[in-house]
Amino acid sequence: MANNVTNRFHQSLTRNALRSYLAEFMSTFFYVLAVVGSGMSARKLMPDATLNPATLVVVAIANAFALSSVLYTAWDISGGHVNPAITFAMAIGGHVSVPTALFYWVAQLIASVMACLVLRVILVGMHVPTYTIAEEMTGFGASVLEGFLTFVLVYTVYAARDPRRGPLSATGPLVIGLMAGANVLAAGPFSGGSMNPACAFGSAAIGGSFRNQAVYWVGPLLGAAVAGLLYDNVVFPVTATTGVSDGLTV
Amino acid sequence: MANNVTNRFHQSLTRNALRSYLAEFMSTFFYVLAVVGSGMSARKLMPDATLNPATLVVVAIANAFALSSVLYTAWDISGGHVNPAITFAMAIGGHVSVPTALFYWVAQLIASVMACLVLRVILVGMHVPTYTIAEEMTGFGASVLEGFLTFVLVYTVYAARDPRRGPLSATGPLVIGLMAGANVLAAGPFSGGSMNPACAFGSAAIGGSFRNQAVYWVGPLLGAAVAGLLYDNVVFPVTATTGVSDGLTV
Amino acid sequence: MANNVTNRFHQSLTRNALRSYLAEFMSTFFYVLAVVGSGMSARKLMPDATLNPATLVVVAIANAFALSSVLYTAWDISGGHVNPAITFAMAIGGHVSVPTALFYWVAQLIASVMACLVLRVILVGMHVPTYTIAEEMTGFGASVLEGFLTFVLVYTVYAARDPRRGPLSATGPLVIGLMAGANVLAAGPFSGGSMNPACAFGSAAIGGSFRNQAVYWVGPLLGAAVAGLLYDNVVFPVTATTGVSDGLTV
Amino acid sequence: MANNVTNRFHQSLTRNALRSYLAEFMSTFFYVLAVVGSGMSARKLMPDATLNPATLVVVAIANAFALSSVLYTAWDISGGHVNPAITFAMAIGGHVSVPTALFYWVAQLIASVMACLVLRVILVGMHVPTYTIAEEMTGFGASVLEGFLTFVLVYTVYAARDPRRGPLSATGPLVIGLMAGANVLAAGPFSGGSMNPACAFGSAAIGGSFRNQAVYWVGPLLGAAVAGLLYDNVVFPVTATTGVSDGLTV
Repeated sequence: MANNVTNRFHQSLTRNALRSYLAEFMSTFFYVLAVVGSGMSARKLMPDATLNPATLVVVAIANAFALSSVLYTAWDISGGHVNPAITFAMAIGGHVSVPTALFYWVAQLIASVMACLVLRVILVGMHVPTYTIAEEMTGFGASVLEGFLTFVLVYTVYAARDPRRGPLSATGPLVIGLMAGANVLAAGPFSGGSMNPACAFGSAAIGGSFRNQAVYWVGPLLGAAVAGLLYDNVVFPVTATTGVSDGLTV
Repeated sequence: MANNVTNRFHQSLTRNALRSYLAEFMSTFFYVLAVVGSGMSARKLMPDATLNPATLVVVAIANAFALSSVLYTAWDISGGHVNPAITFAMAIGGHVSVPTALFYWVAQLIASVMACLVLRVILVGMHVPTYTIAEEMTGFGASVLEGFLTFVLVYTVYAARDPRRGPLSATGPLVIGLMAGANVLAAGPFSGGSMNPACAFGSAAIGGSFRNQAVYWVGPLLGAAVAGLLYDNVVFPVTATTGVSDGLTV
Repeated sequence: MANNVTNRFHQSLTRNALRSYLAEFMSTFFYVLAVVGSGMSARKLMPDATLNPATLVVVAIANAFALSSVLYTAWDISGGHVNPAITFAMAIGGHVSVPTALFYWVAQLIASVMACLVLRVILVGMHVPTYTIAEEMTGFGASVLEGFLTFVLVYTVYAARDPRRGPLSATGPLVIGLMAGANVLAAGPFSGGSMNPACAFGSAAIGGSFRNQAVYWVGPLLGAAVAGLLYDNVVFPVTATTGVSDGLTV
Repeated sequence: MANNVTNRFHQSLTRNALRSYLAEFMSTFFYVLAVVGSGMSARKLMPDATLNPATLVVVAIANAFALSSVLYTAWDISGGHVNPAITFAMAIGGHVSVPTALFYWVAQLIASVMACLVLRVILVGMHVPTYTIAEEMTGFGASVLEGFLTFVLVYTVYAARDPRRGPLSATGPLVIGLMAGANVLAAGPFSGGSMNPACAFGSAAIGGSFRNQAVYWVGPLLGAAVAGLLYDNVVFPVTATTGVSDGLTV
């Protein structure tokens, strides 16, 4: 048993494993740079304004485009998580070992903090924005909303990584990014639409306020775990054959 | 005959069939969550405004991105309808049996109502928006417009699901979503650009007004049926070979 | 000789050929419906305004999304021209016979007129917008600009249809649409960014003003022909092998 | 040795090599036409305004859409650099010979100057915009920012060109363009988000101000070189096998 644990731990330190942590670091760094950066650029253009429809589009498109791209770059190396909630779901589902998941988390969190730090240092005088919750909402409500959004995201990730996708697998990273962008458009003014604890953690660490930080961890981690288990065990178990319904072929 | 009906009904209750209803439920839930959610988020940012160009972009992009993604996730499981009008066309065309189609409808409608309910409960104090028609338009005109848009959408679905597409099949769900987004940009200020009776039904049920509901059913169902029959029997019958014109190869 | 002409003409009336004209008609109809419709919807939202950045985004995205989608649907049937300038380039390059090209033109022009008519009839009281030229520009300058944009578009079409593209062929229709959208963003306020004589013709016919119509024919047809000849004979002749430069492989 | 140099030089003058320079010229010309053109069109619509969120979206989407498309068209001919920084990284990494790289640079710079000249001549009375730096930023800070963005871009290029991508290679040019668009959204108001020395050079040459030109060369060239070396030697060496982590398969 202990032996087994040691083996799994050693597996987490092979050259390939180390490269996968680096890939997670790079992709998460790129993603946070674009997402938090677009938030700062929106604020720069509308200093006295809170979010408005045009700035919401700026942030949502940055999120969609950047996520599609960074998932693509890490896809064949680390599996393209770039998000502690996704890694959590993969660990719960037994797709990554616990030690590997922990190293992924560390890589993702450090990457996010460093990306926000770079933005803070380079964009002189600009404040790193942290995710905020609409006045009329409770922290609980916001966490439930973020949980639902992350559920959607992780469900999409599972579908996109499913080897039974055939030709569709070419657009897997793309559709995940598009779903994230749509979710930001829906939730932006209410809870920010983070869906990614690393992103929330990094901006909080550098922005200097961990207020409501739990909101961006509890809901997303729960939503992610449920989505993964649901897809693997109910919606599309490995045992299932594709092409169920006559609806499949026109 | 009765026997035959029973068989078809039993076919609709196999494990695979049940999974396909669940897939329709999930994808429709995700889609409505993003589409209606983005409408609420646009309203939150412009409380006193009706639609404006920036909010139209918000809603249209959410529609395009979410639809591409949810069709992708359900594609190999249920066939990716996520829309009663598409299911209707598939049933008319004989691609899904009537019992299966009915179960699809139930899954889609319940999913839409639940998504709107979730938004209503979580986004405290926000009103769930229902599709509205421009003052100068009649309900009939709006239904004709929605019918045309749904015709375009379903025609695209048939093309995207056509097994003769070859390499293009990798981007099938994507182009359907893009077409839907373009249609919303064209029809948003006039009839809302629903093209999906489930979406209109859910928002009406929770928004509390079934005014003009028929508009979002009659036109779309007719347009969908005509599009499917036209594609199957005239534009690209199964008997037809691809690569008709010398225009095909550069 | 005459015999040969007759043959080519008969070839243009086979069932497959007729289906390809229908496919051109459908796709062009869908495209014009979305592009002109989005222009009307932008005007509806900003009645007293000329184009502004937000409405430019509305029109450009509608163009990009719709074109990607309609090229996809017609791709394997008619070759996906949806544009008289592209058909013209294909005829000049010998990829479609002259009779076929003529039938394509007829299908495209009728489709565009009908799409604008449908919008005119359904969107009561809305004026069908025609392409206009910025005050400070001459018709000649505008035609040169439209010619350059169409050159870019047709060059992209040739690249996307090139059978040597390998895996990239899956995204051919998509990148053509994206290029068109980018061009509209660049030229919208100056010449409208039509790049498609059928679209300009239909809106002029129903909008009731053929002012500057030549601008949207002369430049685009010339640009298209040059692009096709350049690609076929210089940039990437059939005789050429791919993978020229070591730059090809990372 | 000298002999070797001569050979490499001769290799740079084969018919295939010449076609690849032409492909670089065309794609860079198209890209700059769309990117600088969209900047001019944004300015035309908001004469008295500096960048605002809506115009930022205009420029960012034009960048994303155009880059995806022009990389696609040049992909199999020249390798699709369209950017001196990328060519520089490829030369440093030994993927293109130095003479070839020099010819690529010449093609890219001439293309950019000509595209800006065309815009200057056609769009009468419009000023060709040059990249500017936010007041509160130093030239050094701006160059570091552009360096980071170019690092992200080139890293993505290497990932997209990696032959080990399998089915994902179908969307390579697309994700590179999307990443560029996200970066523009993040950096637009601060340093402009050029990431492409050719684009900065062309607009400066025709716009008539080489102020801060070094900013758009030093950072990007360094960032590009580091990204290429890092990907080749550390993240994903040729010796490495794909599918490292169990995270790879769901």
